[in-house]
Amino acid sequence: MPVFGQDLSRSLSRKAAILGPGLIGGSLAMALRRGDAPWAVSLWTRRAESVPAVEAALPGCPVSTDLAAAVQGADVVVLCISPRAIEESGERLTSLISPSTPVTDAGSVKSRIVTSLEPVLGGRFIGAHPMAGSEQSGIAAARPDLFDGALCILTPTENSDAAALDAIRGMWSAAGCRLREMAPAAHDSAVARVSHLPHAAAAALVHAALGKDRSFASLAGSGFRDSTRIACGPENLWTEIFLDNRKEIAAGIADLQEHFEALKTAVLRGDRGAVEAFLRTARALRSEDSA
Amino acid sequence: MPVFGQDLSRSLSRKAAILGPGLIGGSLAMALRRGDAPWAVSLWTRRAESVPAVEAALPGCPVSTDLAAAVQGADVVVLCISPRAIEESGERLTSLISPSTPVTDAGSVKSRIVTSLEPVLGGRFIGAHPMAGSEQSGIAAARPDLFDGALCILTPTENSDAAALDAIRGMWSAAGCRLREMAPAAHDSAVARVSHLPHAAAAALVHAALGKDRSFASLAGSGFRDSTRIACGPENLWTEIFLDNRKEIAAGIADLQEHFEALKTAVLRGDRGAVEAFLRTARALRSEDSA
Repeated sequence: MPVFGQDLSRSLSRKAAILGPGLIGGSLAMALRRGDAPWAVSLWTRRAESVPAVEAALPGCPVSTDLAAAVQGADVVVLCISPRAIEESGERLTSLISPSTPVTDAGSVKSRIVTSLEPVLGGRFIGAHPMAGSEQSGIAAARPDLFDGALCILTPTENSDAAALDAIRGMWSAAGCRLREMAPAAHDSAVARVSHLPHAAAAALVHAALGKDRSFASLAGSGFRDSTRIACGPENLWTEIFLDNRKEIAAGIADLQEHFEALKTAVLRGDRGAVEAFLRTARALRSEDSA
Repeated sequence: MPVFGQDLSRSLSRKAAILGPGLIGGSLAMALRRGDAPWAVSLWTRRAESVPAVEAALPGCPVSTDLAAAVQGADVVVLCISPRAIEESGERLTSLISPSTPVTDAGSVKSRIVTSLEPVLGGRFIGAHPMAGSEQSGIAAARPDLFDGALCILTPTENSDAAALDAIRGMWSAAGCRLREMAPAAHDSAVARVSHLPHAAAAALVHAALGKDRSFASLAGSGFRDSTRIACGPENLWTEIFLDNRKEIAAGIADLQEHFEALKTAVLRGDRGAVEAFLRTARALRSEDSA
């Protein structure tokens, strides 16, 4: 009986053109190639020297530096390139793909990208932010299970095309993601707190912990290592994220500074009740998250 | 040939009395019971109701609420109790153990404990801080490999007894720790940066990320979870640590606030070079650590 379903899904096999086969794009390609109904995947990379490594990591997937060749026949185009490159890609794509071909991306800040691309690509552009990654980057760090169970936030707007939204939902689901939809600005505000602010905090903590005496690193245990791991992420990408979402991130840092000020004051005063309440509330908020 | 060595080590089997079989004390007992030359271990717990769970976790180790019974015949006494209880234990111990029996502890702040206990216990008290743990607590979280490869900082002073220091070194080594020795004040200053400050930062980050809208937790990925995991630690213990090391922790928080201010200013100004340099330096400092 399930034979029908399998045959049907195979007959619906689709093709994704993934631009930028780094950690995210490479992992997406690997994820879509898995399973009973693998997608066809073609890849575009800007640099000719990276073609051999991408071909080796993704056997059976054509890899090209020619954008026209990479997107030909694609049912979905996925922009896994830098935020600036995403914004600049619109005009060139419109000349290469059919007007109805859905386009999505994987950028961490959505308002700016959606505002840039909707006027150029129209309602078939559906912003996306898969909440998965690591402090590593590049095709060497890519893995097929990166998105399994990870949340992917889609940011459709009132201009979005329903068929394109369906196709983009299907593609990210096929990669293993759970889906959620939010307005671009609401996404940027929330993600500033739970994704961008942790990165800022990890980097600032490294400065404060090791900036004056690097030898303290030899005393660090798993707590320090876990809480600063994300500070090893690529600074060029994170600089773009911080600047693209600057108001929300600055507001988050300002909040954080107020909390540090309250804690510092309580510690210096020896105010046991205030210190304990600060830590208890944090533990309770954090524990609800993991529950 | 190794038979001689093994027999010799067996003949040197020693007995540790561990006061407070929680995560640290319970794991220490489990660690010492392993291997070819297991230590004898007796345990003291304040609460009668926790005896059955400790007995079940550590078969073959007598568990008592009677301090005199627990420390009888011990070659080493280990205080794995709260900082206040450590300080208060000295007078009672002197009446129960021989004047030469070495005593050590596992507290996270050393100046205050060493200053309290040396006058009472003399040079046989050797402060220790095993840099291992987790956000969990209690005997249920204890595990025999908690200390394997972890750094244990010993804080002997000019008053320390050489034989006691040797015995305490041997005990923490037998548990699996790497050893290092520092003066109590130098320990507190360094550990404030790489252990206590990360805890403060994790708690403050939870407040800033989730304090205004708890539903943001549903958007959090592995970066947020890793960087805030330690905020789930027991607040009563961490409050004592923060207050015992208040000057060093307050200085660390002040440094952290300055780094946040610099980052916030650079982000709001759109100063790409400054943001990227901030993140690059953090990544480089953190990467050296893990190298």
